[in-house]
Amino acid sequence: MNKEVDLSKYQIRTDLAIDYVNENKELKGVKYKTEVVNGIKVTNVELELENELSKKKGKYITLEFEDVTDYKNRDNIISTLTFVLKKLIKPKKNSFGLIVGLGNDSSTPDSLGPLVVKDIIVTNHLYLLNELSSGYKRLAAISPGVMGETGIETSDIIEAIVKKVKPSYLIAVDSLASKSIERLNKTIQITDTGIHPGSGVDNKRKELSFESLGIPVIAIGVPTVVDASIIVSDTINFIYKNYAFNKEYMKDPKSKFTFNNVNYLSKKIKENKLDKEKLLGLVGTLDDEELEALIYEVLNPVGYNLMVTPKEIDFIIEKLSKVISISINNSIHNIDRNK
Amino acid sequence: MNKEVDLSKYQIRTDLAIDYVNENKELKGVKYKTEVVNGIKVTNVELELENELSKKKGKYITLEFEDVTDYKNRDNIISTLTFVLKKLIKPKKNSFGLIVGLGNDSSTPDSLGPLVVKDIIVTNHLYLLNELSSGYKRLAAISPGVMGETGIETSDIIEAIVKKVKPSYLIAVDSLASKSIERLNKTIQITDTGIHPGSGVDNKRKELSFESLGIPVIAIGVPTVVDASIIVSDTINFIYKNYAFNKEYMKDPKSKFTFNNVNYLSKKIKENKLDKEKLLGLVGTLDDEELEALIYEVLNPVGYNLMVTPKEIDFIIEKLSKVISISINNSIHNIDRNK
Amino acid sequence: MNKEVDLSKYQIRTDLAIDYVNENKELKGVKYKTEVVNGIKVTNVELELENELSKKKGKYITLEFEDVTDYKNRDNIISTLTFVLKKLIKPKKNSFGLIVGLGNDSSTPDSLGPLVVKDIIVTNHLYLLNELSSGYKRLAAISPGVMGETGIETSDIIEAIVKKVKPSYLIAVDSLASKSIERLNKTIQITDTGIHPGSGVDNKRKELSFESLGIPVIAIGVPTVVDASIIVSDTINFIYKNYAFNKEYMKDPKSKFTFNNVNYLSKKIKENKLDKEKLLGLVGTLDDEELEALIYEVLNPVGYNLMVTPKEIDFIIEKLSKVISISINNSIHNIDRNK
Amino acid sequence: MNKEVDLSKYQIRTDLAIDYVNENKELKGVKYKTEVVNGIKVTNVELELENELSKKKGKYITLEFEDVTDYKNRDNIISTLTFVLKKLIKPKKNSFGLIVGLGNDSSTPDSLGPLVVKDIIVTNHLYLLNELSSGYKRLAAISPGVMGETGIETSDIIEAIVKKVKPSYLIAVDSLASKSIERLNKTIQITDTGIHPGSGVDNKRKELSFESLGIPVIAIGVPTVVDASIIVSDTINFIYKNYAFNKEYMKDPKSKFTFNNVNYLSKKIKENKLDKEKLLGLVGTLDDEELEALIYEVLNPVGYNLMVTPKEIDFIIEKLSKVISISINNSIHNIDRNK
Repeated sequence: MNKEVDLSKYQIRTDLAIDYVNENKELKGVKYKTEVVNGIKVTNVELELENELSKKKGKYITLEFEDVTDYKNRDNIISTLTFVLKKLIKPKKNSFGLIVGLGNDSSTPDSLGPLVVKDIIVTNHLYLLNELSSGYKRLAAISPGVMGETGIETSDIIEAIVKKVKPSYLIAVDSLASKSIERLNKTIQITDTGIHPGSGVDNKRKELSFESLGIPVIAIGVPTVVDASIIVSDTINFIYKNYAFNKEYMKDPKSKFTFNNVNYLSKKIKENKLDKEKLLGLVGTLDDEELEALIYEVLNPVGYNLMVTPKEIDFIIEKLSKVISISINNSIHNIDRNK
Repeated sequence: MNKEVDLSKYQIRTDLAIDYVNENKELKGVKYKTEVVNGIKVTNVELELENELSKKKGKYITLEFEDVTDYKNRDNIISTLTFVLKKLIKPKKNSFGLIVGLGNDSSTPDSLGPLVVKDIIVTNHLYLLNELSSGYKRLAAISPGVMGETGIETSDIIEAIVKKVKPSYLIAVDSLASKSIERLNKTIQITDTGIHPGSGVDNKRKELSFESLGIPVIAIGVPTVVDASIIVSDTINFIYKNYAFNKEYMKDPKSKFTFNNVNYLSKKIKENKLDKEKLLGLVGTLDDEELEALIYEVLNPVGYNLMVTPKEIDFIIEKLSKVISISINNSIHNIDRNK
Repeated sequence: MNKEVDLSKYQIRTDLAIDYVNENKELKGVKYKTEVVNGIKVTNVELELENELSKKKGKYITLEFEDVTDYKNRDNIISTLTFVLKKLIKPKKNSFGLIVGLGNDSSTPDSLGPLVVKDIIVTNHLYLLNELSSGYKRLAAISPGVMGETGIETSDIIEAIVKKVKPSYLIAVDSLASKSIERLNKTIQITDTGIHPGSGVDNKRKELSFESLGIPVIAIGVPTVVDASIIVSDTINFIYKNYAFNKEYMKDPKSKFTFNNVNYLSKKIKENKLDKEKLLGLVGTLDDEELEALIYEVLNPVGYNLMVTPKEIDFIIEKLSKVISISINNSIHNIDRNK
Repeated sequence: MNKEVDLSKYQIRTDLAIDYVNENKELKGVKYKTEVVNGIKVTNVELELENELSKKKGKYITLEFEDVTDYKNRDNIISTLTFVLKKLIKPKKNSFGLIVGLGNDSSTPDSLGPLVVKDIIVTNHLYLLNELSSGYKRLAAISPGVMGETGIETSDIIEAIVKKVKPSYLIAVDSLASKSIERLNKTIQITDTGIHPGSGVDNKRKELSFESLGIPVIAIGVPTVVDASIIVSDTINFIYKNYAFNKEYMKDPKSKFTFNNVNYLSKKIKENKLDKEKLLGLVGTLDDEELEALIYEVLNPVGYNLMVTPKEIDFIIEKLSKVISISINNSIHNIDRNK
């Protein structure tokens, strides 16, 4: 309390289902479907059992895209996200939605939720006065703040408000921590399982879910920060992939000309254990989990396991929040805006 | 709903007791005391009965000062306000305070409450973990937003949170509408009667008070906006006062030299009804209430009864919020900071 | 210097030509034309002589509108302003524009210029690298700050930059002080005569104009603040107009039913001097200038001649800045965006 | 130009001298001195020759500290930085300083310069009116923006203003890119050699220096961002250091109890090449430059060589900017403030 700001309080929450599931693994009780819509990769994961992913059963839909600051791309993300939300929410004539913007509006990478809430077209107060225009549904929105700034468990605030105003469903928007450098700010996850802080590490926050609140809870999350240790373990893997790719690819004399333009991560390579150990020593023999654990143990005691965000985060968050608020407005109300 | 922003929703709340009471009038059931502490005028009004003021019984303490952007002045306001709050709150060892920042952080003149909350040293989450440092009391803080942005009645949000987290007292900070141009941004009112939107005009918001919440409610309010009609009626009165002052004062030949430096409002003048009518015609014969009603009727139908704020409001609100947050922190926790 | 912020430094600049000219007066050397385009009233004033208006000769185009926060209205203002700017700028293939955002980004009512600059699509750096996309013109933009925050005369900064980067024309965007309550935030003035601080009161800033910079200077100004004394003198005039309107109108028995819905300012009334004196005494005998002077003398010595802005200024400035930046972008570049 | 925001324009500038010099290397023409003042490590590097560091000759003073958000620490940084600046600036009675805040106020990690400028006590306009209070020196300040938002080379703007207003010295404040994870937000570099974008990578911006401007130029820089590739190469080195430390340390049975509390980076270890290769394979045989080059080549083609900043950057930048603005104000004016 000698400090004005206890930075440890600004924790970012949870992670993505698709980091645990992929096309290569076939898992019991997991339905997996992927398609590309207007350049946006949409992945549907349906967990029918609680399982080793320590993920709850339910639907996890993930949108992957390249660059949210590109105009055309943005319009595509909006139409895809609107479509996904409409299917998931299915707002009926008298349904009453509560949008919850989780996170801290004073911290750029954690401000996604509060920024989205600012742009939601709320109507509940008009509904109560019988002044709701046709085409609009009953909607309220709140930014409960973060525990480090309120001193109150965020889920307690939400629970109390839900009990009082009795919405029929809840949509929570939040910043997430990414489990891979490739997802950072390029993924939106929508799930009907709620927000599950339990899947994070030392994050004891209570969940917002059907189980805890008694109403359907949809969570929209975007990974906006990543641990330094994940950047490092991803890169160590990339070092090997790049090496293996070059080794295989360089046999072909034609490759010389196109070499620099090729994304080596997009090609499948066969792992060669001997090669990997030669290149990376004992570190090269570790599996993903062991490598992450090693790096965590190396960075943590000296205080450098920073959680980081790209330096352009202000611009990215602004675009992401517009994409999400517009999609929520369009999917609930009977409108079609793009600003 | 054709508009993005329904401006009518950004209403500012309530008004000051000292606009209804003054040294000249002696009122039944009203105790009135005024003193000057370090250049700050402190007025204590105690209403022992509900009465014609349409104010609730309780204590109303008002601090009046000249310029909150002056360094030295600010330190004096902080120490006076801290003293007043300490006396009113009397925080005990185990008391648990909830600071509520009313208003809209997106609207400068209405952002006082949310800005104060940003600087409150909250400790409730540490208390619950048994990590409260010595010298600190249990404190939480929240900015519930405004109905125009949440769609939810603000008092409903507060009520729900109070019920859930069970604070032992509540302090609400809010921007007020001024009933006189002289008070604007130069007055802080502290009262133990809560926030009473009923005293405003068409403001149907429910009150936050001991009666509604079951715990002591202290309200800290600063008038940051004023109706155009009040500016006009005040000025019409000033026109007469200036005239009367000049008439009386100009008899004295010595006055010529100091004339321009004299504040004519600081001198008491005797009203001369004939003079006033000569100067201001029928308008000069109206009493204060009649004049205000006339101006309201003239400005309202043409849409010019604007609620306005000084153009320097950004700088003033910043200073006011610091003064109040520092005073709250110092009066509850056992600390003495000035930043 | 005992204060952190010298508020007197945040002065707002200049005023509108249409406050001095109107359809009723015919003035030598003044061409006057007015039309309504998509609900926007467009007034063209062309001064062919320097004259008693203390306005420079040149074109003054004024857009008047009701509510900039209304979606449809906003689209109309954008298309009208784009049309006006295109005619005035006539950007040629190789012309190089410099947009200057005057004002203080820390002070909401004075932040219009800097906010507009944030949204200008600048291309000069791309032009210099031969990377200018087709459809785009060469454009730069700068916010020089205000003297109270830089310590430097703003026109000196602009002059220095113009000399260095050599644009072929300049567009300055600024907040203005309104000379009437009716114009406040409901008027955009575009002129090819530059910014003329000389027409303001005690504002010694040097002008930005063809004469001082050697290139065409277009100024876009919006009145965002108004003196308390103007609110008062306008209202005193309204009191009489309202009285005269009622007197005339109430003879007609049919009027009883529609009375409250009629805008008395929209009807022409004949002034009756005796009536006016009866209603307002000596004050009623003053002409507009005398009345303003009286009120100024009454309010100034007691410190209440505040310059004020409506309490919704944050929302209004945001919409106004979007309207202007989009119009500038669309009129210079070969694009047609509405966000 | 299909994008609204060209993120590549928000580049952060230059780097630190102490990343190239250290106590272990003795370099010709380099004076090196280090001391600890109030817990702040102060390193003085004086380059007497241009040399292989590709750094200009002159003084480089570096302050290293642990946590700028700690109150007591902050006061120590302020007093040390004030002392250093006083020695370097030596402001005379009539000297006229221009503070330049480089960077982009819309991008949190790049907003340090503009934020510092907001809090500088400027006086040049008062000096020109002969209203300078005693104790204050002549001072101006400007935030020229970034080329991506102005379309103008920033050094051109500064050069033009310097030519016009003729300051006698210039202080430029800027965000830097860090060459090591350990420096990030924990270092302030002050140099009298100006800002030298030439030492950055593909950053063609012209320098601000005595050579280009004809007046002394002091640069104050804080590394606020770091390349992902540096995080990775630092961590790979830490993996080995941690391994070597454990190997040596674990022989001692007493160590078991304190093990987890020891900072392995603070102990000097002897490098064992065989061990390093065993642990890290071929990668372990690379020297620092080779390792960085490898990682750059691995991350760049797939777009993941992000420049990143800690997720708490909003809070850190706010504290850093206060520390620097207070130190500049205190070192130039004859005042001693801590807010």
